[in-house]
Amino acid sequence: MKALMLSVIVATSLMGASLIDGAKTAGLKPIPANKKAVEKLTSNPANPTTAAKVELGKMLYFEPRLSKSGLISCNTCHNLAIGGSDGMSAAIGHKWTSNPHGLSSPTVYNAVFYSQQFWDGRSPHLEDQAQGPIQAGPEMAAPKDHVTNVVNSMPAYVTMFQKAYGKDVKITFEKIADTIAVFERTLVTPSRYDDFLNGNKKALSAAEQKGLKTFIDKGCTTCHNDIALGGTMQAFNITGQYKHMHVGDFKGDANGLVRVPTLRNVTETAPYFHNGQIATLSEAIKEMGRIQLGIDLSDTETAEIATFLKALEGKKPNIVYPMLPASTAATPTVDVVNN
Amino acid sequence: MKALMLSVIVATSLMGASLIDGAKTAGLKPIPANKKAVEKLTSNPANPTTAAKVELGKMLYFEPRLSKSGLISCNTCHNLAIGGSDGMSAAIGHKWTSNPHGLSSPTVYNAVFYSQQFWDGRSPHLEDQAQGPIQAGPEMAAPKDHVTNVVNSMPAYVTMFQKAYGKDVKITFEKIADTIAVFERTLVTPSRYDDFLNGNKKALSAAEQKGLKTFIDKGCTTCHNDIALGGTMQAFNITGQYKHMHVGDFKGDANGLVRVPTLRNVTETAPYFHNGQIATLSEAIKEMGRIQLGIDLSDTETAEIATFLKALEGKKPNIVYPMLPASTAATPTVDVVNN
Repeated sequence: MKALMLSVIVATSLMGASLIDGAKTAGLKPIPANKKAVEKLTSNPANPTTAAKVELGKMLYFEPRLSKSGLISCNTCHNLAIGGSDGMSAAIGHKWTSNPHGLSSPTVYNAVFYSQQFWDGRSPHLEDQAQGPIQAGPEMAAPKDHVTNVVNSMPAYVTMFQKAYGKDVKITFEKIADTIAVFERTLVTPSRYDDFLNGNKKALSAAEQKGLKTFIDKGCTTCHNDIALGGTMQAFNITGQYKHMHVGDFKGDANGLVRVPTLRNVTETAPYFHNGQIATLSEAIKEMGRIQLGIDLSDTETAEIATFLKALEGKKPNIVYPMLPASTAATPTVDVVNN
Repeated sequence: MKALMLSVIVATSLMGASLIDGAKTAGLKPIPANKKAVEKLTSNPANPTTAAKVELGKMLYFEPRLSKSGLISCNTCHNLAIGGSDGMSAAIGHKWTSNPHGLSSPTVYNAVFYSQQFWDGRSPHLEDQAQGPIQAGPEMAAPKDHVTNVVNSMPAYVTMFQKAYGKDVKITFEKIADTIAVFERTLVTPSRYDDFLNGNKKALSAAEQKGLKTFIDKGCTTCHNDIALGGTMQAFNITGQYKHMHVGDFKGDANGLVRVPTLRNVTETAPYFHNGQIATLSEAIKEMGRIQLGIDLSDTETAEIATFLKALEGKKPNIVYPMLPASTAATPTVDVVNN
């Protein structure tokens, strides 16, 4: 932590030239202004993004029949209408089960920029991540063969998979997760902050620029860096450190650390922290200062940072709500009350 | 019932002239081809449809924070992606409660054409209907003041209500339900069947026309008539009549009758009947012949009718998934696990 703090101090001392340069030196990176550059940056070379895959992935993202109950889709907890999350402290899943570790649903927006998925960072990318919640008992609770049987039971889905992957495609659980991930890779929300870092000095107001400067000067970029302002490293597991925030039994990764979340659209994703125990953004900023940086942020500094964070509200993709194929006699059904 | 059967026979004898005339004589009516005529037909004079109300109503329809838990929206059980229903035999609501009467979620598509809402027909229109599920304990479970507090807590909603209803609008629970209803009034799905009834004799294939003729000749239009092919009257409560279908304790209306559902998009809304106890359309057709008409439909007749019903699949409105306002410090939150 001390070594990282030092790098922040270096960044700050370089900020005289321009705030944009200072931000970049502190490890902040914009979403590129060029659409092709964004596509290249967000596409997985092993599973390249195509329009056919994105459309199919969108349908599967909103598809409740993938879940054991038929009621829960990816969008239930990562609701694209409310910041890509669910607004709850701890996620609710199959049979109204609260997340057993007290974990909050992270936003899916800009998750493509994370180098590690899940709160313990155990997953390297979205293709791998998407397999988890579908199967997890307290979430969608669906065995792999339920998921593949559902998709294969509807001819319209089979045709779309053939269009996306070729005539001989085998619709496996992994292929379904891959396709959902391709859609999620498009969930990028460029903001005025990106315009600013891309060179438009007027894109942020004076107050927002002041907030960005405070954000850098205080060391927030130590953890909240790169394109997502988070998602590249693990930080203190506040559950273990601070008893008043202890919910569930989440221990973080092998070192007891928790993945740093993105700050993009953070004004839309309360309550805060991995356990959703902090209600307001101001409180979250102050608590992070105390816990992670060992400093007491003043009310003024906190307000400055909050003003900057609000500028991270991004433009959401235009999403036409998908019309999904009708179930057939072959589509699995479940006695949802008893199973 | 005998009087109604007679009227069907009269209709059939008139069919020589043309199937279109015969269908109209049997009480079937198309969705008008003219867009203005549809708007006039579906608008409530007491609460006229405007673009501002529709957009706001759409947001509220998809708004999970109206529910006590913050997880369930109108769209959870009346999912516009899967035929306007949930694909379940009995609805699942707050805290994973199954509908206590074993009732299935009816589709919201074309419900505007119903003269009576709910399975027991107790509600006269969508404005009244929309108030029910939001408050019902096993559905969204939200007290009225929770709903109004949620909406009033977000300035973007207040602004939209002012835009829709004027500066002095008071955002009451009833006004919120009214607005959702205005959106629901746009959920109309014209089909090739409507083109046919509107005069295009080639809009239905020969097999589909044959199916329509069988549908009329056998007496299905006795109950499944008017624009929605249902929704205008009550029929036998099959729960009470047929013990093998008995689920829950639903008694229907004062006469033990159940509202006749629409047949539009019926291929997309299995399982069937008010208690969702019939899995396939063929089975549903045969069972209706036996129960309601006292006849055994042959496999051929059943297939003919099914072919016609598939032609009732309509074009769904294009719905851009709404981006909802961020919660504020004033937005009520609930301990969803314990409350």
